[in-house]
Amino acid sequence: MCPKPSEDHRAAAEQRQGQLTKPPGSLGALELLAVRLAALQATERPSGQRAPIILFAGDHGITAQGVSAYPSDVTVQMLHNFANGGAAVSVLARELNVPLAVVDVGTLGEADIAGVTSDKPRHSTRDFSRDAAMTDAELAFAFDAGKRAVERATVAGADLVILGEMGIGNTTSAAAIAAALLACRAQDVVGAGTGLDNDGIRHKAQVIDAGLSLHGLDRGEVSPVEVLRCVGGFEIAALAGAMIAAAQRRIPVLVDGFIVTAAALAACRINPDCAPWLIYSHRSAERGHRLVLDALAAEPILDLKLRLGEGSGAGLALPVLRLACALHNQMATFEEASVSGPVP
Amino acid sequence: MCPKPSEDHRAAAEQRQGQLTKPPGSLGALELLAVRLAALQATERPSGQRAPIILFAGDHGITAQGVSAYPSDVTVQMLHNFANGGAAVSVLARELNVPLAVVDVGTLGEADIAGVTSDKPRHSTRDFSRDAAMTDAELAFAFDAGKRAVERATVAGADLVILGEMGIGNTTSAAAIAAALLACRAQDVVGAGTGLDNDGIRHKAQVIDAGLSLHGLDRGEVSPVEVLRCVGGFEIAALAGAMIAAAQRRIPVLVDGFIVTAAALAACRINPDCAPWLIYSHRSAERGHRLVLDALAAEPILDLKLRLGEGSGAGLALPVLRLACALHNQMATFEEASVSGPVP
Repeated sequence: MCPKPSEDHRAAAEQRQGQLTKPPGSLGALELLAVRLAALQATERPSGQRAPIILFAGDHGITAQGVSAYPSDVTVQMLHNFANGGAAVSVLARELNVPLAVVDVGTLGEADIAGVTSDKPRHSTRDFSRDAAMTDAELAFAFDAGKRAVERATVAGADLVILGEMGIGNTTSAAAIAAALLACRAQDVVGAGTGLDNDGIRHKAQVIDAGLSLHGLDRGEVSPVEVLRCVGGFEIAALAGAMIAAAQRRIPVLVDGFIVTAAALAACRINPDCAPWLIYSHRSAERGHRLVLDALAAEPILDLKLRLGEGSGAGLALPVLRLACALHNQMATFEEASVSGPVP
Repeated sequence: MCPKPSEDHRAAAEQRQGQLTKPPGSLGALELLAVRLAALQATERPSGQRAPIILFAGDHGITAQGVSAYPSDVTVQMLHNFANGGAAVSVLARELNVPLAVVDVGTLGEADIAGVTSDKPRHSTRDFSRDAAMTDAELAFAFDAGKRAVERATVAGADLVILGEMGIGNTTSAAAIAAALLACRAQDVVGAGTGLDNDGIRHKAQVIDAGLSLHGLDRGEVSPVEVLRCVGGFEIAALAGAMIAAAQRRIPVLVDGFIVTAAALAACRINPDCAPWLIYSHRSAERGHRLVLDALAAEPILDLKLRLGEGSGAGLALPVLRLACALHNQMATFEEASVSGPVP
């Protein structure tokens, strides 16, 4: 069970928006964001200041089928880049003044990396074109790793958490999850990932359709847990676990791009109560994202043709969310500023 | 004449984007923004840190025809609100840590207001349903007031300027300018402004069409200067003057919503060389904005259903632009981070 947003605080925030010195509704999506955050945070003064980023990383056995433009080595290489401050999300965390927690929940990496938390059930998932990606126990471990990461990142309090991911091959896993849960063909949700050409995308779709068929996930009415286990990734399972854990703690989640949104779809199927706690940051350029967002009735904040992952799109949306809060909290009311209302 | 962007710096910035640790193009619109700013600022390290906001305010004689949901008194009331820190743009300036310059270029206000620069040719334009909104001399004065404001705001250096406006009745003037310059009917570019209902919008369109007819501006092939003089506003003329002055000083302009975009259309018709210097911040909810943006081949950064003005949409886009610069300047290259490239 997840708690419900506070309807009293939502109503109070809506009333306040109507009193601020601007035509009603003229701040558009910002008004809705501020009101929604007020209800989620159960406060009169919503905030996005304390917004730790948690990035989950994992490797994917399905890369053996040639579904990615980059080799699996890049996942661990990027863990070093995150820790050393050179990756996009590292730059964003610094500029936004938020902590970045990088959690290896299943990469091929053997050695510890300073600045990266290792909390993994296995090195890489299995190739889902042959076997289930993980066992029940491995799935449960990854799911709980997500919960543990939320606990660590929010121990000193958090206004919201930003979730991101890294894992060569994970758009294939995310597309497989989306196709299974939305009961559509892979071609409807598959995209270029890190940079496949059209032939590569067609091959990727065939690999996914064959995998879904192998695991009996192409017949609708599937269990979201079974979908995660058979074709998921450790970082995607951790993301779903983190979302439900955050919602249970009344902490809103700023959802990143295609992969995190696929995890959100799984989380909402597992526990529909978590849905109100998920705020969608952006519509990405990855082709399947729109369909998944539509299935979640999501209206993302940004549309910047991003397709990087790492939590980068969510990081970019944070300033908009923070400014929505600042406007809500700091603008003068018509009465305070002695400004006239509309012509009667 | 306005200078041209630096093609050498554009090429260097594009090359750098290709070396950063991300799939090529995966930062979407942010890559284009960083590259464009590098070319405009003629630098290897673009920046949006020093970004003064200049807000021009004016009143409109056309309000006598009942074209606005709010009374003209609100323009001067809002000048006080800007100066006192209670308006949306005041909050944004504070949060973004940029100076806000408020310039009265033609309101009905008689008394000086602390924190507001008065630089106006006249108190309010004339009612363009009866007379030309301004004389040649008044237009030239307002145009130069825009130039003077840019000079003051950038005297200590600026990476770019943000332009905003306030003026009850100015969506009517902006729509009239757009209809005249795009040779379309008012109904194609007219919107609710601060909150008209459908009857109000129809009346507003009729007032505009009648005004354009009276001044002979409904026949295509119109002079942009004559359009500004007959149906423009002092703040819109100042905006156009400010844009051309900024471009001549190699200072990019972050353009706000419908009214500032209408001023941009006029500026580009008066001096097409200024076009590369204008960066469009958002697509607003005001109905005519899309058409004007399309005419300018603009792809705005944000689409948040804003319709407030004041420079608020441009202020909201500034963090995205700043983060685009930070990513461009601070991310590690593949070589620096020892990250592998694509599978051969």
